Amino acid sequence: MSATFYSSPTLAAWRHAAGADWTRYTNHAFVQGLGDGTLPQASFHYYLIQDYIFLTHFTRAWALAVVKSESLSEMKLAAASVDALINHEMQLHVDICKKVGISEDQLFQAEESVENLAYTRFVMDAGLSGDFLDLMAALAPCIFGYGEIGLTLANSAIPSTPYQQWIDTYSGDEYQGLCTTLGNMIERAALSRIGPEPMASPRWTNLCKRFHMATKLEINFCTMGLRGHE
Amino acid sequence: MSATFYSSPTLAAWRHAAGADWTRYTNHAFVQGLGDGTLPQASFHYYLIQDYIFLTHFTRAWALAVVKSESLSEMKLAAASVDALINHEMQLHVDICKKVGISEDQLFQAEESVENLAYTRFVMDAGLSGDFLDLMAALAPCIFGYGEIGLTLANSAIPSTPYQQWIDTYSGDEYQGLCTTLGNMIERAALSRIGPEPMASPRWTNLCKRFHMATKLEINFCTMGLRGHE
Amino acid sequence: MSATFYSSPTLAAWRHAAGADWTRYTNHAFVQGLGDGTLPQASFHYYLIQDYIFLTHFTRAWALAVVKSESLSEMKLAAASVDALINHEMQLHVDICKKVGISEDQLFQAEESVENLAYTRFVMDAGLSGDFLDLMAALAPCIFGYGEIGLTLANSAIPSTPYQQWIDTYSGDEYQGLCTTLGNMIERAALSRIGPEPMASPRWTNLCKRFHMATKLEINFCTMGLRGHE
Amino acid sequence: MSATFYSSPTLAAWRHAAGADWTRYTNHAFVQGLGDGTLPQASFHYYLIQDYIFLTHFTRAWALAVVKSESLSEMKLAAASVDALINHEMQLHVDICKKVGISEDQLFQAEESVENLAYTRFVMDAGLSGDFLDLMAALAPCIFGYGEIGLTLANSAIPSTPYQQWIDTYSGDEYQGLCTTLGNMIERAALSRIGPEPMASPRWTNLCKRFHMATKLEINFCTMGLRGHE
Repeated sequence: MSATFYSSPTLAAWRHAAGADWTRYTNHAFVQGLGDGTLPQASFHYYLIQDYIFLTHFTRAWALAVVKSESLSEMKLAAASVDALINHEMQLHVDICKKVGISEDQLFQAEESVENLAYTRFVMDAGLSGDFLDLMAALAPCIFGYGEIGLTLANSAIPSTPYQQWIDTYSGDEYQGLCTTLGNMIERAALSRIGPEPMASPRWTNLCKRFHMATKLEINFCTMGLRGHE
Repeated sequence: MSATFYSSPTLAAWRHAAGADWTRYTNHAFVQGLGDGTLPQASFHYYLIQDYIFLTHFTRAWALAVVKSESLSEMKLAAASVDALINHEMQLHVDICKKVGISEDQLFQAEESVENLAYTRFVMDAGLSGDFLDLMAALAPCIFGYGEIGLTLANSAIPSTPYQQWIDTYSGDEYQGLCTTLGNMIERAALSRIGPEPMASPRWTNLCKRFHMATKLEINFCTMGLRGHE
Repeated sequence: MSATFYSSPTLAAWRHAAGADWTRYTNHAFVQGLGDGTLPQASFHYYLIQDYIFLTHFTRAWALAVVKSESLSEMKLAAASVDALINHEMQLHVDICKKVGISEDQLFQAEESVENLAYTRFVMDAGLSGDFLDLMAALAPCIFGYGEIGLTLANSAIPSTPYQQWIDTYSGDEYQGLCTTLGNMIERAALSRIGPEPMASPRWTNLCKRFHMATKLEINFCTMGLRGHE
Repeated sequence: MSATFYSSPTLAAWRHAAGADWTRYTNHAFVQGLGDGTLPQASFHYYLIQDYIFLTHFTRAWALAVVKSESLSEMKLAAASVDALINHEMQLHVDICKKVGISEDQLFQAEESVENLAYTRFVMDAGLSGDFLDLMAALAPCIFGYGEIGLTLANSAIPSTPYQQWIDTYSGDEYQGLCTTLGNMIERAALSRIGPEPMASPRWTNLCKRFHMATKLEINFCTMGLRGHE
């Protein structure tokens, strides 16, 4: 474990506390299949459809973060994330899906898998029940796990994998820069709520539990992606 | 399909729209195992633990219904449900679990299954995203499905089933009376939001979808109960 | 300032941080008028009607506390408060109002004053934006201020004041005992979120601000009560 | 009254139902003072500071609308509004305030007036308690009232008013175009929830009440602006 993760010691500690489940997620057979190209195309398409639905709820979760912001910089970054998700990251998915004949309205109406639903509604409820930091702990495994996966696959993927575009997206400067910006924000959000020694805070266990549960739900999401189909 | 279900035509229409999934839930192998006594005791214990966690979140969902009430009678009934769940129905579980050596604090801290989490967080988010009626559509399959299951098993269970107490609880006058009271409330809640012809409302499809998804999540919960263990 | 307030050092520190505004609230001319009997009856009736509306939203705020509870004891006490408010404290108001010819449905439909609305919606939003403790900081001035006012008036009121029943309610063992129970709960809620030295927490300033703003909104509510009429 | 208001018959009907209070708002002495230049500069500066705080909460309200969206187009427009408010409309205020020596962080920390707080928290709670349309009814008086005021003042203001920039902002094509876009969205949002005859919906009275209350809270906000100072 590094002392920081995307510039944030708090994130690093959360990742460490998730133990082997973090590796089960970031090194999932689904992830490996993206890198070595063995993931069936049908599985990837199913994953893309589910990921689109995921992103609509992830946008809602970032919007809830705007609602729960307690500083100007938190509010601005959360608002920028809402906009980036719906106008950029989602558009990427829409474009890819359009190529295989799935319209955006179909995407919005597609049947949501239980693994997908479980994950996003858990995040929303973390926001409803706790404060901004509780919500960040539930959002973090997706944001930063995809960053880590992107970098890993950029180094390890075979040249002929059909999933190079996906790998490029998450390993690229734009996404990696976003991760660092958000890592800094989470570090400041932790500092202003649980102080300079986060692990000494009485909230620490609960925050780790939220991060860990979201990590487990990411594992399930990967398993869903591997299984694929509708 | 009967024209009303627990005094409510709206409930009956929701149940009808859930189609075969309603039967998959109310006639699930887990339910049958309660009636014919073949459900392994270990599965039942696991179910009890998960059901305890479920009830804490179900209490939260009814509390959200208090937040979202728009009439005095809605508020009073929702508040009474909050109290009844946490001080009565939950106590029943606590007492049963205590007999097998599980303390209430252990119950509160038990590891939540994904099937359990998916269901309750979906209900919470239905409340956050919609209005009181949207929340009721997501709450209804549990309330009234257990009522129907209770009555069915009261008629069909073998005399020697070890789960007679569970059957008595849900088929008993107290729970059945509660169902009728809540059925009446939901009917009035529908009338005051989508009018006397609910199926003609543009919201009808979405309301049916919420009820149907909650029904599917009940099926998963039953499957979890059948599988059992930790 | 005493070192504790209703068994809670945290409450005492919040009250202290509210400075002169705490006294402006608990020693408001409206409060004095209850004690020396000079408060016009019409003002008191108007206050009662507004207080009824206040209690419906206060019930909603406690219901939001159930949603946001992170321990079994928090959930049980918040649920009990929901029930106590709607089935007991509100009923007291309903009974008093009935004597002067105002029905419960009229009460529920009465025009809400802006001072009333400002206060309760601020509390609801404290709950939506923050965690359980943020919500408690916004709820506390009402709960414990009325406790303090009750005790003060019990000692200072003239025997012939027509508001003796009101004074008896808030100075009585039942309400005072409730205050101590809730003071203990808030102290534990603070301990489990901001640790044994609450004033050293980075959240301390924000929590004090929530308590202080709710105190100011209580002052406005008293001023509304003094002004009276519709 | 026109049959539509910013392309929306529903908006026109809400405005009509607010009766004389709509005129008290859009023709408030504060508004007149902007047009004839008699509004004291100190009052305008105080208004600007409060309006900045207002916009942070208005951003939060639009973020809550993202959370509560039930269609892709609702979500996209609400997300765009979040971004537009925090990155454009707020920046306008920041720039103006910077000229008179007030920094953005000072703005964020300025003491919020009770009139301001009452209004925004009412809107947030409309969103928490109801659905997307309930939230829109509470948001509408600000959005479209400023549009109407902008157009009125563009026609009636004296050439020498020092508030020409403010008038230009709200009467300009960009803001007027936004109003039409949002008017269309609200009309569709109403259609998909209360059908083609909104006034026949059982929810109509409550929706009108939310719009009307927000209109009253706008009047109070204007009165605060006229009074000015801190």
